[in-house]
Amino acid sequence: MTANTENKSSNVVWQETTVTRGQREQMNGHKGAVLWFTGLSGSGKTTLANAVEDRLHNKMGAQTFVLDGDNVRHGLCSDLGFSDTDRTENIRRIGELARLFLEGGSVALTAFISPFKCDRDIARKVTPEGDFYEIFCDASLDVCESRDVKGLYAKARAGDIPFFTGISSPYEAPETPELTINTGEHSIDSCVDQVVDLLIARGVIRSVQTGQTEVA
Amino acid sequence: MTANTENKSSNVVWQETTVTRGQREQMNGHKGAVLWFTGLSGSGKTTLANAVEDRLHNKMGAQTFVLDGDNVRHGLCSDLGFSDTDRTENIRRIGELARLFLEGGSVALTAFISPFKCDRDIARKVTPEGDFYEIFCDASLDVCESRDVKGLYAKARAGDIPFFTGISSPYEAPETPELTINTGEHSIDSCVDQVVDLLIARGVIRSVQTGQTEVA
Repeated sequence: MTANTENKSSNVVWQETTVTRGQREQMNGHKGAVLWFTGLSGSGKTTLANAVEDRLHNKMGAQTFVLDGDNVRHGLCSDLGFSDTDRTENIRRIGELARLFLEGGSVALTAFISPFKCDRDIARKVTPEGDFYEIFCDASLDVCESRDVKGLYAKARAGDIPFFTGISSPYEAPETPELTINTGEHSIDSCVDQVVDLLIARGVIRSVQTGQTEVA
Repeated sequence: MTANTENKSSNVVWQETTVTRGQREQMNGHKGAVLWFTGLSGSGKTTLANAVEDRLHNKMGAQTFVLDGDNVRHGLCSDLGFSDTDRTENIRRIGELARLFLEGGSVALTAFISPFKCDRDIARKVTPEGDFYEIFCDASLDVCESRDVKGLYAKARAGDIPFFTGISSPYEAPETPELTINTGEHSIDSCVDQVVDLLIARGVIRSVQTGQTEVA
């Protein structure tokens, strides 16, 4: 059969091939990881996740992808509302999604309030051990409410948004996150440094990536 | 503020950054795309998708990811059964998932029977125009049933699997797919060539990728 490159037999059993996560990581020059940013609305999750991605991708040549409300809530999870059940299902799907990007060799960054420990634990459990980094964006309610960029806290205080985390619904702070960052007290560059330093220390990424140039 | 790299003010509005699909594609040296393989059970969708990925990733240095029953049905879509509603929701999610990998600069390859035109059209519609490649794995029911690698057709004929595509549930063949491949008459190498040639012709990938070496 080896000489017959255009085999006409319909009974040929094709050989199965699979590209492994290891092959992807070897080509990318870094390991995959899930960076799970959690914290109150206004604590800087999305901004920090995007800034970390900017550093990892544009400055260090890494494969990265940010999952946030904009690209998940309106697409994959557009069938879900904001009931407790739907919120849990939302976080479950995001955990599975992040795992797929990890399997694809990327550093997946998720930016969702994810206020409940049990939901974050579900996301952690579908991720291979050691690949999940829970990053607590620790800013006080006062700080977050004083920012209130989107005016959400004002609406929540007025009773226009039910079950608003920090106001009318609890936020369960991580007990043993891989990293806690006080986003109210540090510059964004300093916060990004803390995340990147952790990834270097854990061997996810090298301090100087080779074979890649800045493309920004 | 520029000289203050460790700004202590909690009222600092951090600058938002975003890595664009264009930046990802520039770094990867190819464009993103969604390759949507469709066809009967046993028509070679998964085998072909994996073989195309092997060629694109290991030989041409491209960023790729295969979505199939193994990594989607048991994870992201583990809450779904096989009712018509659940099948439609399954395909909807896979379409959204493929779009996210596309946005991440990858060539996403999906391998699902996806028997209904309306479901495939939903997946096409969430993908930017021109980025969606419907690839019809066209093998006759006779050919697929004669392979029956997993013994599914035998079970379906015995009535043990209800709503089995091709036996007790219809398969709506694509009317204007981007590519039709008769998987019963060609070698797998020839089938892979047809897909890769199309991607080269459409400018998704270059015939010789530069800056990447084989990592297989």
